[in-house]
Amino acid sequence: MERAVVLLSGGVDSSTLLHHIRQTLGVQNVYAVSFTYGQKHVREIDMARRQAEAAGVADHHVIDIASFAGVAEGGSALTDASIHIPDLVDIAEEDREQPPTYVPNRNMTFLALAAAYAEARGITDIFYGAQAQDEYGYWDCTTDFLEKINHVFALNRGEAITIHAPFVDLRKAAIVKMGLALGVDYAMTWTCYRGGDTPCGGCPSCVERAGAFREAGAEDSGGSAAAP
Amino acid sequence: MERAVVLLSGGVDSSTLLHHIRQTLGVQNVYAVSFTYGQKHVREIDMARRQAEAAGVADHHVIDIASFAGVAEGGSALTDASIHIPDLVDIAEEDREQPPTYVPNRNMTFLALAAAYAEARGITDIFYGAQAQDEYGYWDCTTDFLEKINHVFALNRGEAITIHAPFVDLRKAAIVKMGLALGVDYAMTWTCYRGGDTPCGGCPSCVERAGAFREAGAEDSGGSAAAP
Repeated sequence: MERAVVLLSGGVDSSTLLHHIRQTLGVQNVYAVSFTYGQKHVREIDMARRQAEAAGVADHHVIDIASFAGVAEGGSALTDASIHIPDLVDIAEEDREQPPTYVPNRNMTFLALAAAYAEARGITDIFYGAQAQDEYGYWDCTTDFLEKINHVFALNRGEAITIHAPFVDLRKAAIVKMGLALGVDYAMTWTCYRGGDTPCGGCPSCVERAGAFREAGAEDSGGSAAAP
Repeated sequence: MERAVVLLSGGVDSSTLLHHIRQTLGVQNVYAVSFTYGQKHVREIDMARRQAEAAGVADHHVIDIASFAGVAEGGSALTDASIHIPDLVDIAEEDREQPPTYVPNRNMTFLALAAAYAEARGITDIFYGAQAQDEYGYWDCTTDFLEKINHVFALNRGEAITIHAPFVDLRKAAIVKMGLALGVDYAMTWTCYRGGDTPCGGCPSCVERAGAFREAGAEDSGGSAAAP
């Protein structure tokens, strides 16, 4: 594979995926796409930029869909100022299948835009950092979702696009271990949903990250524990 | 069904669909979504506004994804200033399955955004004006596409969304006949891809529209023949 598109949020999973594609899979021309969509933690985009630069991408295209916050109004704690991002411990067990941090159909929207970007450039392979372990869960990060969305793309009468998610069966700790071996600088990643100056340590995303580094037996140079 | 979302471009098919949903299906609260995506024929949005008003929608949300033109750069005559929109007669037979007027993965992007809009508001039904007859063709307007994208949406762990495309097996002439019976004002629709002051009469979309009205045995108050 000579060219590929990667969805790059600037978090742990997608940053690791970027370096995995460049180094392990040896893809020469990697096209990274990131999204500004009214997320509270928009500082992740700065991290995406630094990771893209570090990996030596062919292009880093930041797609502005600021209108998304209005589209999903009232639907998610990640984009709606009036909805508090809860601590993980405050999310009831029965809500963890589709927690308040879920953004309505965001991931399909991102994949659709990444596919438009790829198709316009004649690129047929897209990498998506969906991963298996979540203390909470998202339907659009599963093998089922991947399989079915690839069935849609397969219908294209030109060159069909394939979404690859090599981490979809991995726990986050395994991704961290892989990234450390690849030399990923995790101080240059952003995870906290709250998007403050330093990671909060309590939101689902912070807790998951801390757990992954703990499980991997590694220091986290960019997590909440590293915050001053 | 008490509430539904409809994708409303301001063209013949989606405008007819809007009135069909309101009058024939009797849906009380219709939420129309339109998209500005760098299309040359952005004047269709004015027509969408007028149709939404005429139908008495609960909301008309125009979603701005101006960034789409950059995403699909070089990929479509509809969004790229440097690519000429050909007359239908100049599109070779072998290109008609995926002609220059095809916009890379635009329709999936629109459906994904419409689904985000619907999901955030607790609406589960979305109407999409895909139709069967085209002098040229689009993979993302077929029953296959619909079936497979609904398989994706069915995976949602909350309330799953269904995309309905009641016109998918209809020829455009049948849609026109239906719309005339419903009292749709076709002078208040826009079809021409070129987006000039008056319809060009030669682009694939103008030719298809003229053919549909001819086949329906009706005068077109808004088509190229009606242009001053």
